[in-house]
Amino acid sequence: MDMDEFLERGEELFLPNLSLDIAIMGFQEGELKILLLEFEGKWTLPGGYVGREESTDYAAVRVLEERTGLKRSYLKLFQVFGNKDRSFTNEFEKIATKAGLPWHKDLWINQRFVSLAYYALVDIEKTNPTGGEWQQAFGWHNLKQLPPMWMDHGDIAEAAMKQLQRDITLEQISFNLLPEEFTMPELHQLHETILDKKLERSRFQKKMLSLGIFERLPKPKADAPRRKPYLYRVKE
Amino acid sequence: MDMDEFLERGEELFLPNLSLDIAIMGFQEGELKILLLEFEGKWTLPGGYVGREESTDYAAVRVLEERTGLKRSYLKLFQVFGNKDRSFTNEFEKIATKAGLPWHKDLWINQRFVSLAYYALVDIEKTNPTGGEWQQAFGWHNLKQLPPMWMDHGDIAEAAMKQLQRDITLEQISFNLLPEEFTMPELHQLHETILDKKLERSRFQKKMLSLGIFERLPKPKADAPRRKPYLYRVKE
Repeated sequence: MDMDEFLERGEELFLPNLSLDIAIMGFQEGELKILLLEFEGKWTLPGGYVGREESTDYAAVRVLEERTGLKRSYLKLFQVFGNKDRSFTNEFEKIATKAGLPWHKDLWINQRFVSLAYYALVDIEKTNPTGGEWQQAFGWHNLKQLPPMWMDHGDIAEAAMKQLQRDITLEQISFNLLPEEFTMPELHQLHETILDKKLERSRFQKKMLSLGIFERLPKPKADAPRRKPYLYRVKE
Repeated sequence: MDMDEFLERGEELFLPNLSLDIAIMGFQEGELKILLLEFEGKWTLPGGYVGREESTDYAAVRVLEERTGLKRSYLKLFQVFGNKDRSFTNEFEKIATKAGLPWHKDLWINQRFVSLAYYALVDIEKTNPTGGEWQQAFGWHNLKQLPPMWMDHGDIAEAAMKQLQRDITLEQISFNLLPEEFTMPELHQLHETILDKKLERSRFQKKMLSLGIFERLPKPKADAPRRKPYLYRVKE
């Protein structure tokens, strides 16, 4: 389906008035990062529409895979953005007309869209991001310094960050942002970065180990003069 | 708008393919109860559609008020039911044809519906429930003994209960189920009922008071021979 057809006949394939957006978050170089797509100088979250023949959750898994190459990740619906004026007519029109696409006011994507907002936690090293049909660039951005965003996508990214802060305090999901094997200092730095505050190291480590979900790997060989920290991973 | 018109032209007023359902829960006679509506021998949660000119959250507030008379309540979106086969054609057809309404397969409500699932916590004494246009009865039911339910509404009710169990453990929202002034034994019994387990009384009371959100009212006058428990309420 090319873009002309998508604009004219997309409603046959997708539920109208419903979209989904995913805040795909990773941890790299001591920063929490988010995957964004660019067109015309502003950025959006990866997103899409819900196929008439797929569940909402499956649609989210599909969009995540399309943009990152990942088949499995921690993915969570955290909010619904359903304001009555939530329509992207003006933004789409600029982009579509510039691209020479047919544009008229009755197109289905000119209507209001209720967006299901998900967040995903990924190991950036394992991703292989690709842009969408309309996008000119894509890349990882520091969540604390978002570039200019289209529509309400800055609000969605911020809401995802707040939800993540809350969720890692209550559940143990942060390891989804680290490689399979990680050190306690890495886990500690990750939590400090997400919560944006200092956490006393030995108390943090004690709390993490008391959860009983991590196992320590055998001590690494002393092949270097500096003492290496133990590696941990999630228990099978 | 009468029912004929609603069936034929509802899509002009409401977003297609999107509905909302609310598990309205209250606490009475030591039981957690849920408000249900009946037609043709089976029951549903109160629900509705999202007006094209209203936000999703406002639609939920409106449905809650229509069914209970309450203008304000604790109301929370907790899940989205978005299975690809989620359509109520068969159920609606039975009801509509029995009621002598026009019915054909192209009606908008024959399509798939993604449902936004909310729960509300109410003081049953303050509600004044009314049925919908299609319903033959409505009433409060014990959440642990649901009657036969239409469609997936039993699943939604159970998911709401699980979310409530989780939420009262993490947040202090349970007072929304009690009158404005309540005793610690009442709060204790409420938590035991929701969590479906015994909670050691003095430890529970200590934990609740340590939250610092409740204030104790002046001691009731000793106008009865039995000692009355203190009354508490949420601090302003």
